[in-house]
Amino acid sequence: MMENLNFDTTIAVEIERIREKRRSKERDLLINEIPLTIFVNEREYVTLFCSPRKLDYLAVGFLHLAGLLPSKDDLEEIKVDEAKGLVFVRMKVPVGKKEMPSPNSPVILGKGWEALYLEAPSARVFKTLPGRKRRAEFSQPESSLQVKAEELFQLMAALLNASSLFKATGGVHSVALALPHEILFFSEDVGRHNAVDKVAGECMLSNIIFHDKILLSSGRVSSEIVVKADKLGLPLIASRAAPTSLSVELAQKMGITLVGFVRGSRLNIYTHAQRVVL
Amino acid sequence: MMENLNFDTTIAVEIERIREKRRSKERDLLINEIPLTIFVNEREYVTLFCSPRKLDYLAVGFLHLAGLLPSKDDLEEIKVDEAKGLVFVRMKVPVGKKEMPSPNSPVILGKGWEALYLEAPSARVFKTLPGRKRRAEFSQPESSLQVKAEELFQLMAALLNASSLFKATGGVHSVALALPHEILFFSEDVGRHNAVDKVAGECMLSNIIFHDKILLSSGRVSSEIVVKADKLGLPLIASRAAPTSLSVELAQKMGITLVGFVRGSRLNIYTHAQRVVL
Repeated sequence: MMENLNFDTTIAVEIERIREKRRSKERDLLINEIPLTIFVNEREYVTLFCSPRKLDYLAVGFLHLAGLLPSKDDLEEIKVDEAKGLVFVRMKVPVGKKEMPSPNSPVILGKGWEALYLEAPSARVFKTLPGRKRRAEFSQPESSLQVKAEELFQLMAALLNASSLFKATGGVHSVALALPHEILFFSEDVGRHNAVDKVAGECMLSNIIFHDKILLSSGRVSSEIVVKADKLGLPLIASRAAPTSLSVELAQKMGITLVGFVRGSRLNIYTHAQRVVL
Repeated sequence: MMENLNFDTTIAVEIERIREKRRSKERDLLINEIPLTIFVNEREYVTLFCSPRKLDYLAVGFLHLAGLLPSKDDLEEIKVDEAKGLVFVRMKVPVGKKEMPSPNSPVILGKGWEALYLEAPSARVFKTLPGRKRRAEFSQPESSLQVKAEELFQLMAALLNASSLFKATGGVHSVALALPHEILFFSEDVGRHNAVDKVAGECMLSNIIFHDKILLSSGRVSSEIVVKADKLGLPLIASRAAPTSLSVELAQKMGITLVGFVRGSRLNIYTHAQRVVL
């Protein structure tokens, strides 16, 4: 009685709709969400709930950002079993059980780490560092990126335009990696983190460098998104929505330009404003 | 050099705003996000990124839903160190290291578990069950709850009205536990899960029963929210936003009524529609 997963990005269902005191049965589209289990060298590592697209990129990006897969060169093979929602990642070097960090540990690392360690009030967050020894693997060259406000407006319009799922169902987050004048990689997912991981994975497999690129997001910028951008070496995050205080604090310390509420011809620059010009 | 955490719910910052090709320095409000580390019997358990309110409820609700704290009677003491962002939970019975489930494991359990186990395509999700033996601790009496559509419209309006943070900053999720005619418990947080955990914790400490109550949410309904509702024994979830396919599938199997897009005088009923009447 094992059903296979449905890999459409949306699923049609029968619903009952109440509208102005009238009740009717109608057809509606749901955003599809599936459980994806990632195996590393045959060992079960983590299960993510995600949209059923670009599962290989999601697995690779997730493992890269968890510090387990430093580069494309460390990858031996990826196999995706779409029907069962499984991804098997084989690395060139065996990974000991102790080396595998807990996949969901909130870990702050990156170039701002020393500062964070000293200043963070809840230092524990910054001390429990399974990925600490891997810091050097994330390269963080200085960025000379500059982008015009007008370019950010156009990029955000292009991001929202590319997001077909959102239009259909109202339930996904869109993320893109962009140059000032164009979107290079795009993903959408029920989870904001998954969308970032998918873009990170696709870029890593294409040997893309990050230090002259922009991370665009349709959703809110939480601290964990900033940490991911820092790990990748991205100099600028632009979101249609709000950042949190911790994301602004981290972006400030990590040297990342954080732009929020990019809507129409307006935007807010929270940190390192010099990278955005009129 | 250890700074204390700022426990205001919002933080004023200087930003640069670009609007219609004009650039200005302005003051803006950010939603405050802090790292909170939860200790169980002196052992560090998990760090959550959250809004700095109701931290005791968040810790208790999180541990309850993780299966570690079955009821108020199992609780010896809660101490909150607000300045450092730490919560110390002491239980009456010692907890062995092996008994502590990984705090972030995606675990599906509850009354629908057997069915899920049989039917779930990625059965692994439903097999890795640190909390499995604790199933019986979540009581799931049959619910005879019925709510009028008009009551749901009013509850959702009240939820959004109560959400002062969202109005100020545009960056939080609101959750409430309600009876058809009134909201009983309310919380808001940068994280949807935290908001649910806070309400769960506050209710548990007040010995509230769930099987005649409604879970209201301003945000999207993902599978994990449905799992939490199932663990608590909640018969109805009503959201202003969209559910995912997996949340609808689980709600169907778990006997939970799932209502989405509650806006103005409209709503969509995805599962077990009999609990919503005109």
